Amino acid sequence: MTNWNNLDTLASYKELLQSDVVDLKDAMTGEGGAKRVKEYRIPMAAGFTYDYAAKQVDDDILKTLVALANEAQLSDKFEELYNGAVVNTGEKRLVLHHLTRGQLGNDVVADGTNKRKFYEEQQQRIADFANKVHSGEITNEKGEKFTSVVQIGIGGSDLGPRAMYIALENWAKKNGKFLMDAHFISNVDPDDASAVLADVDVAHAIFILVSKSGTTLETLTNQSFVMDALKKDGLDPAKHMIAVTSETSPLADSPDYLAAFYMDDYIGGRYSSTSAVGGAVLSLAFGPEVFADFLKGAAEEDKLATEKDPLKNPDMLDALIGVYERNVLGYPSTAILPYSQALSRFPAHLQQLDMESNGKSVNRFGEPVSYPTGPVIFGEPGTNGQHSFYQLLHQGTDIVPLQFIGFKKSQLENDVDIQGSTSQQKLKANVAAQIVAFACGKDDENLNKNFKGGRPSSIIVGDEVTPEALGALLAHYENKVMFQGFLWNVNSFDQEGVQLGKTLAKKVLAGDISDALKEYADLLEI
Amino acid sequence: MTNWNNLDTLASYKELLQSDVVDLKDAMTGEGGAKRVKEYRIPMAAGFTYDYAAKQVDDDILKTLVALANEAQLSDKFEELYNGAVVNTGEKRLVLHHLTRGQLGNDVVADGTNKRKFYEEQQQRIADFANKVHSGEITNEKGEKFTSVVQIGIGGSDLGPRAMYIALENWAKKNGKFLMDAHFISNVDPDDASAVLADVDVAHAIFILVSKSGTTLETLTNQSFVMDALKKDGLDPAKHMIAVTSETSPLADSPDYLAAFYMDDYIGGRYSSTSAVGGAVLSLAFGPEVFADFLKGAAEEDKLATEKDPLKNPDMLDALIGVYERNVLGYPSTAILPYSQALSRFPAHLQQLDMESNGKSVNRFGEPVSYPTGPVIFGEPGTNGQHSFYQLLHQGTDIVPLQFIGFKKSQLENDVDIQGSTSQQKLKANVAAQIVAFACGKDDENLNKNFKGGRPSSIIVGDEVTPEALGALLAHYENKVMFQGFLWNVNSFDQEGVQLGKTLAKKVLAGDISDALKEYADLLEI
Repeated sequence: MTNWNNLDTLASYKELLQSDVVDLKDAMTGEGGAKRVKEYRIPMAAGFTYDYAAKQVDDDILKTLVALANEAQLSDKFEELYNGAVVNTGEKRLVLHHLTRGQLGNDVVADGTNKRKFYEEQQQRIADFANKVHSGEITNEKGEKFTSVVQIGIGGSDLGPRAMYIALENWAKKNGKFLMDAHFISNVDPDDASAVLADVDVAHAIFILVSKSGTTLETLTNQSFVMDALKKDGLDPAKHMIAVTSETSPLADSPDYLAAFYMDDYIGGRYSSTSAVGGAVLSLAFGPEVFADFLKGAAEEDKLATEKDPLKNPDMLDALIGVYERNVLGYPSTAILPYSQALSRFPAHLQQLDMESNGKSVNRFGEPVSYPTGPVIFGEPGTNGQHSFYQLLHQGTDIVPLQFIGFKKSQLENDVDIQGSTSQQKLKANVAAQIVAFACGKDDENLNKNFKGGRPSSIIVGDEVTPEALGALLAHYENKVMFQGFLWNVNSFDQEGVQLGKTLAKKVLAGDISDALKEYADLLEI
Repeated sequence: MTNWNNLDTLASYKELLQSDVVDLKDAMTGEGGAKRVKEYRIPMAAGFTYDYAAKQVDDDILKTLVALANEAQLSDKFEELYNGAVVNTGEKRLVLHHLTRGQLGNDVVADGTNKRKFYEEQQQRIADFANKVHSGEITNEKGEKFTSVVQIGIGGSDLGPRAMYIALENWAKKNGKFLMDAHFISNVDPDDASAVLADVDVAHAIFILVSKSGTTLETLTNQSFVMDALKKDGLDPAKHMIAVTSETSPLADSPDYLAAFYMDDYIGGRYSSTSAVGGAVLSLAFGPEVFADFLKGAAEEDKLATEKDPLKNPDMLDALIGVYERNVLGYPSTAILPYSQALSRFPAHLQQLDMESNGKSVNRFGEPVSYPTGPVIFGEPGTNGQHSFYQLLHQGTDIVPLQFIGFKKSQLENDVDIQGSTSQQKLKANVAAQIVAFACGKDDENLNKNFKGGRPSSIIVGDEVTPEALGALLAHYENKVMFQGFLWNVNSFDQEGVQLGKTLAKKVLAGDISDALKEYADLLEI
């Protein structure tokens, strides 16, 4: 049995609080630095390497982090989770997103169904549907092939799938896997749907309505928006729309859709990219085999996350170091910096994944915790960020821990050699340089040009942004966030903090408001 | 004469530190709350209103903030700046971006030139060029009209102009001002340029090379990338490229360009959207009149920023409240949340503007400061963010001050009425609801569903995202950041913190590295 205790009750955490802080500049300079970079490194799935040499840890701190992992029973808790325990205590639900891409433990049966079989079945149904769309067996009313797909969803039904689509778009084009172009409508701002619809050939578009509950205000509103547009063009919406929802939602088994594919309450929105939520759009855009490869990469990383020794488990160690930075060193935010244009929206997805999962003030028993939990997460691709907010990262008054992501090869392999190096080499040289610049700084008598260093970062290095690599990377962060939730003893799988705004917005629309809210409504001329 | 003193030497700052913290939940509840929302409000340019009722201030704190503004001589410093003082002390430069859109004070003569006339002249030269492109007087080699424009730039030459283009794209389409579609290449990642070039009809595209110094690595690399692509298509690059640069750069007066338009060292990259850097791409895309309207809005807001009473000066008051939150209340980050899909990349621009300007640890004399300066800035459009990181904002352990931006009307005015309200009404109801939800919270016995409230926000409300409104909004933030720099006594106009990474990257490419950096280079297979 596992014990769920608050972080600050654990002996190894108290030991961590007493540990000497590593002087990163010292540690990373000279031969000692080189040794660290080679040694503080763990292989990940899909050929990735996680290198944490430039983090403020040493062998002593790592030893205590290992003790913390054991004391907090991280591996046992993960095992309980993937074997079907009710880890989402707030909503009293199982947490099964790992099952969408593989089976790590026992059969999990819920609602009378073997859930692994259920998710596989949905993946297969989507694959069959996508193949029929691609072959021209399923067409529009005129018998013409569908050429575009438009996902209508918000939050987890948007950010993850959108980031994955953008990440693989160029790879697919290069590798003959670009079958349909995809678009996304999310915001209730009518300009979002209007602009997307103006860009899309709606007569040849399939729209995917994604809402687990079938009740999300933004998504249903945008569905109506799209249906109106289709009707205005003389098209039958039911011939252009599919649904991804739960079997119990009003959208299931409805004549309004060409087909419906299912997820369930055991998959949180922000963990749903590997379920039908990501599966439908990615299988239509790039083909079911590409989606299967994406799942394969995620499954490989999940397998690695079951490794009990944190020093061989990159997901767990990344989580432990993050908690050390947040709770012992006191850093309030973290930047994720992919040196890859393909990952331009990956930080926005991670922002949701992390902040919505662990931005909590009460533990899984509903009791207040007295230590900081999830940090603010932000990021933009490098080298763009270097010409933007890196000024503050290098010379600001606060320290922001960083995580870089780099790749050996570009996706399109279309490059130029200028001044003796290719663009990809320049890109890689920049990320390598940044790690050392942040860690070691540079002394200058002019303090305006002085770099103190001591600013911690890690890097995840991969070969290329392929479907498999992307799956592994996604799973790494999902597992990291999960392990951090275990450490903070919070429920990483509910999101009660989003409810109050929804309730009040409905009251505004019903005119059932007074005082301050009424004044804001008047100011905005609602 | 003005005195430049550190924030913590000012008597009114010390008084602020002693002030009672406002209980926001109390203040915003009931009739008192309604009164605040009506009273704590300042008109801005272009029809905007800045409402700060849901910030943790009261009449006493506001009084001290007014005293702080006076003691720090904010108005006098701004006056010095726009009259041509060397406010960028690190680089010993004037700071003249306000002059690109109007003249607030005396003639400013530098390098033997009246700078207002210089900027106007460049704006006019761009307008003439754009008009000739639109009329077909300037064409490609085959005499065909140019239909697309591609900006090649990074950092300030990218983020601002790109955010402005995205903000006005739909407005222009609706109002018959969409003349050329614009694209942006920034990252040295070769996949960026490759993907953009694959999307663009290069035979009918004008490329704008933007680099003040003419030496930016990424930009020159991407220029070569583009020139190669043009040559491969049998096109003459010199007939397809224009430059925006300084008159002293290697790009000026070069036969490699159809034309060159000038900025100068007195316009920082992140402040250059209203100079030729934004002017060329926006005038080509939407016409010179649209760019002129954008400048007009910025000039109006600048005028307002000269108002000496902070309670009538939204840019100054926003700055003061931000410093109060950062230095007295101790909040380390700030989120900017536009409820407008048009402003989807506006937060990324503000992230650079703010973090690159004020992410400094030394004052303008090069002495270390002993208080926090610029915060971490992040944001995504609402309602999207509500389904993502708002969980942490509502229930996380840290408080993140917020600034909402809302508009009464959508840009495309294409809307649907569903369940008794339009999408635009739903969008506005959501932003109003969020302010009150953050401020007042909601008690629940189940602490997992409890909202403590007390989370501060302000809102800027406008009519619609028009060119003029966008200019005013941009200028508001530029001026806010400037006033905060004055308060922190830092130089907001240099960026020495970006240099070290560049230097080290060059060494990596030259193979001139050892130890840790060498190991990272090996890991990345550079």
